[in-house]
Amino acid sequence: MPMIRIEMLKGRTVEQKRACAEALTDAFLKTCGGTPQSVQIVFVDVEKHDWATAGRLNSDIKPE
Amino acid sequence: MPMIRIEMLKGRTVEQKRACAEALTDAFLKTCGGTPQSVQIVFVDVEKHDWATAGRLNSDIKPE
Amino acid sequence: MPMIRIEMLKGRTVEQKRACAEALTDAFLKTCGGTPQSVQIVFVDVEKHDWATAGRLNSDIKPE
Amino acid sequence: MPMIRIEMLKGRTVEQKRACAEALTDAFLKTCGGTPQSVQIVFVDVEKHDWATAGRLNSDIKPE
Amino acid sequence: MPMIRIEMLKGRTVEQKRACAEALTDAFLKTCGGTPQSVQIVFVDVEKHDWATAGRLNSDIKPE
Amino acid sequence: MPMIRIEMLKGRTVEQKRACAEALTDAFLKTCGGTPQSVQIVFVDVEKHDWATAGRLNSDIKPE
Repeated sequence: MPMIRIEMLKGRTVEQKRACAEALTDAFLKTCGGTPQSVQIVFVDVEKHDWATAGRLNSDIKPE
Repeated sequence: MPMIRIEMLKGRTVEQKRACAEALTDAFLKTCGGTPQSVQIVFVDVEKHDWATAGRLNSDIKPE
Repeated sequence: MPMIRIEMLKGRTVEQKRACAEALTDAFLKTCGGTPQSVQIVFVDVEKHDWATAGRLNSDIKPE
Repeated sequence: MPMIRIEMLKGRTVEQKRACAEALTDAFLKTCGGTPQSVQIVFVDVEKHDWATAGRLNSDIKPE
Repeated sequence: MPMIRIEMLKGRTVEQKRACAEALTDAFLKTCGGTPQSVQIVFVDVEKHDWATAGRLNSDIKPE
Repeated sequence: MPMIRIEMLKGRTVEQKRACAEALTDAFLKTCGGTPQSVQIVFVDVEKHDWATAGRLNSDIKPE
């Protein structure tokens, strides 16, 4: 506890995930308490064609 | 908001997901309200050997 | 299959969920196929103080 | 994007969730990029009798 | 690891969850290995009006 | 119902998942009741670099 699950568009590197996992764990422990060992984080990469916003697949949306 | 997550057996095409995302978003907005931009949909393709029904993997179940 | 999970801010009525479940199921079947009986939908009501956008709890955000 | 979901034992206050949401969002943006508005966080409080570790409900586990 | 999440219609007692958590943990360890301490199980009770099958809320479906 | 979702580190074989699905389904039915056909299980394999414990990716943790 806690179990943190992060769904995001594919593209982050392992280096980014490494830094993110460390930063999120610190942020959680400082604000909510608990032991480091109890914090579990799972990253879920989602393809652009598997994520829709406002009814449109992100693979069909041109970057702003 | 909302976050809609759809787990289904692998095999649908991007065209089907595109049509599905549009139709689901419309259906949600008409019945529950909200703004289109707030509707997030994530498709999760699941392999047949990763989905079990009645204790049997779908890869082991013969089509009816 | 599929399993559809909808997380949304608390406040929709059972009547809205009833209409939404019917509309989403139709939308899914028309675009992705499958049998009606296989479509499972779960609604998850989330309190405003349990949902944050841009780092702020929705209970702290004034309606626009 | 991203959608961050945090399942944890019930007991944290709204103040803790407020601080946590802000800290997690900052941590994510600094390490993975993106826009603040895109970061969605959902907290899920779990009762001790709904969470088991090593086959035992947390409500049956004496604090160490 | 693993994280096991069980969504089911509300109604099971704590006694049933206690027995279920123990039995599921044993079943997982015997077939997939790992250490008992690593097995996390979360039960999620869902109201009948929050679960739809074939487009109908379970609260609207008469028991067979 | 129920929907059981198992997130675990990648590496289990289809044979292990087959045995696990059968054992978990039996364990659930014996302790919580229900019909076999209603039990849905989804396995989610997670890469070691997508799972962090105590702020460290499992791909960075040396086996004990």
